[in-house]
Amino acid sequence: MRALLLLPVIAFASTAASAAPKNIIYMIGDGMGPAYLTAYRYYQHEGEHPVANTIFDDLLKGTASTSPDDDTLVTDSAAAATALATGVKSYNGAISVNRQHIPIGTMMQLAKHQGKANGVVASSQVNHATPASFLAHNISRQNYNQIADMYFDYRINGKPVADVILGGGTQFFIREDRHLVNEFKNEGYQYIDNWQQLDSLTRAPALALMADVALPAALNATEPRQLETLTSKALQLLSPAEKGFMLMVEGSQIDWCGHDNDIACAMAEMDDFANAIAVAKAYVDANPDTLLIITADHETGGMSLGAAGKYLWLPEVIKGVSATGRKIADELNAAPDDNTALARWLALTKIQLTKEEQQQLLAARGKEQKALREVAVKLVAQYSYTGWTTGAHTAVDVPVMAYGKNSEDFHGFMDNTDIAKQLIKYISSH
Amino acid sequence: MRALLLLPVIAFASTAASAAPKNIIYMIGDGMGPAYLTAYRYYQHEGEHPVANTIFDDLLKGTASTSPDDDTLVTDSAAAATALATGVKSYNGAISVNRQHIPIGTMMQLAKHQGKANGVVASSQVNHATPASFLAHNISRQNYNQIADMYFDYRINGKPVADVILGGGTQFFIREDRHLVNEFKNEGYQYIDNWQQLDSLTRAPALALMADVALPAALNATEPRQLETLTSKALQLLSPAEKGFMLMVEGSQIDWCGHDNDIACAMAEMDDFANAIAVAKAYVDANPDTLLIITADHETGGMSLGAAGKYLWLPEVIKGVSATGRKIADELNAAPDDNTALARWLALTKIQLTKEEQQQLLAARGKEQKALREVAVKLVAQYSYTGWTTGAHTAVDVPVMAYGKNSEDFHGFMDNTDIAKQLIKYISSH
Repeated sequence: MRALLLLPVIAFASTAASAAPKNIIYMIGDGMGPAYLTAYRYYQHEGEHPVANTIFDDLLKGTASTSPDDDTLVTDSAAAATALATGVKSYNGAISVNRQHIPIGTMMQLAKHQGKANGVVASSQVNHATPASFLAHNISRQNYNQIADMYFDYRINGKPVADVILGGGTQFFIREDRHLVNEFKNEGYQYIDNWQQLDSLTRAPALALMADVALPAALNATEPRQLETLTSKALQLLSPAEKGFMLMVEGSQIDWCGHDNDIACAMAEMDDFANAIAVAKAYVDANPDTLLIITADHETGGMSLGAAGKYLWLPEVIKGVSATGRKIADELNAAPDDNTALARWLALTKIQLTKEEQQQLLAARGKEQKALREVAVKLVAQYSYTGWTTGAHTAVDVPVMAYGKNSEDFHGFMDNTDIAKQLIKYISSH
Repeated sequence: MRALLLLPVIAFASTAASAAPKNIIYMIGDGMGPAYLTAYRYYQHEGEHPVANTIFDDLLKGTASTSPDDDTLVTDSAAAATALATGVKSYNGAISVNRQHIPIGTMMQLAKHQGKANGVVASSQVNHATPASFLAHNISRQNYNQIADMYFDYRINGKPVADVILGGGTQFFIREDRHLVNEFKNEGYQYIDNWQQLDSLTRAPALALMADVALPAALNATEPRQLETLTSKALQLLSPAEKGFMLMVEGSQIDWCGHDNDIACAMAEMDDFANAIAVAKAYVDANPDTLLIITADHETGGMSLGAAGKYLWLPEVIKGVSATGRKIADELNAAPDDNTALARWLALTKIQLTKEEQQQLLAARGKEQKALREVAVKLVAQYSYTGWTTGAHTAVDVPVMAYGKNSEDFHGFMDNTDIAKQLIKYISSH
């Protein structure tokens, strides 16, 4: 009888212990508004109808509003990441401080306080707005050096705030006034700064800064699947943690392509981000005590599939473009003469221009990169019927995807702060 | 003992009977892409944070893809409505026929076959693409007269295809070659053509054609809440049906505002549609055996909240605009002189223009309505920081909302045909 009576108690204890996920993987596609998901589906699709679902489609749960704590309605990445990391809205530019400039505790810091391992992965410099808002506090996202310093100086349980930091940004961590990399090494962090050394990262704590500032754009990179690789590595380093972990992975440059109104650039970043999500999803399948949650901080560019009165969008045109607008501009500027430049255009984009368009392109040669880049991406937009309304962000609600443990808690419409509040509840309960 | 044994059987029978909703209210916001929902939230919001949820937010379940059965990826309203009404994708322009021009049975026809009552409500002419695809078949949406004829000639169980038809379109139903209104009356339909007569519609079958073609735009209409009123009336007429009903309500002109890139026009249509949804939701609350499902056929205009590099969207500007671009153009064209025209602009929009902008506006006076309308809506877009990329549709996935009986069957990402297939399954099971 005794054994039988114990059963409900055990069951209850087990329910309580399993009420929150042990591990959380939080993935943020910077700038990844709803049109980016639709675009990526048709971009990655080969062959006939029906169009296959993407990993985003399979995991979609709802949408989130993104307005900051001011009257602009359109958030920047810092205010959005502050909301996503703390559950509190703030002003544009804020790195997890409120309007009164008072620091707001982040879920990543809380996880560490609770004895969990934690980490960030980004394809930008690791001290860029989104990861910064998870680890540090600053009145301005522009204070890159102060933010990098805080990654080392902000102590929780006597240790730097994050166990695993993977991305770009050596120029902020090896400076004339401070050699943060050496300080991290002296603290016991394994450190690498190139892809060949990846296998030498074998345990947390670890720091990897694979570029001076940001990683190369996915479309231009010689290293394929950079974000996927770093995500795998972070999961490898964090998974031994006894009390679980919290990992934030940012697909940072989707946004940058959006700012450039560069659709080919954006689709390549989406692809790298989708591959990183696939790695995280496989981790959840193998470790069901893990929650994978995915969202965006805002939309960038006002992108539309279809433009200029035409009922048509042509991903085939985009698939033919093998370099970002920035790289195309650099290569065309570096060409010794106009004919070589036009041949280079055709090789890089597979887009046959009219005489008039060729003249537009050549007229922008010899100027700064931006002028030529703008002509290049405008032509790609025009031939693919991609629309753009801005070089900045827009206020449209963003998609929310979830998978694994407690994923049923995320559905329908929510505010970006609701996502954070729910995650903080899980972390607090451990 | 006998009574006790019967209990599970009764419970089972009740479960089986309740597996599908008795009534279905299917509401389609034509052109209502994701940015329209976000825009409407901030447009209807008064006062400080936090921003209140709209009825769309409260009912949001997921998103749906909209691509037609060709290589364009961007659907028109006919192909989209065909998908939403039949579960089968077709070509742009198709009214529930496939690529081979073979008619595809619609859920509205099926409901009638099954002995249910059925009806359509639209703020366009009732034989416009969306309602047409629920009731009729044609190789082209442009064949308005043929479609109107079919509303009378297509017989199910010896009766015209729909029991309740409310919207606009007398010019298609009272023609030189055919007086369909009289034919409907002779068949026992109650008929009205103005708002004063509304109370005289007391039972199905009924036909209401409240305008020559479409109803007035919500922003210009003297009759407030047209779509809400017609939705209430349709529910009143259909609800006595013993075997339940299927009602389709289209917010037709959201799309038309989008085509005009007229944000004030779009927000007023969204408001009327939201009010119509509130009526439907209240019906579900009172009649829990009803499913309310809401979606869009596609996005129109490539609308963005924020434009031209500014991190800002200003719904206050839009709230100040009290007429559509078309009406503004007509009033400015009708003004006896430039000064009166400028005063009329200010009265209708509350937007103070610069001298240069005043000149732009006045330069378009005296030309066709379209030229002046385009200047007017561009100025509203500019002052509110609303972006537009096209006068046509875009391919972005659209929102899906559901409420009431079986609403849990709709969640996450789906294709527009999946919505139809699920509804057809319900209707078939009765």
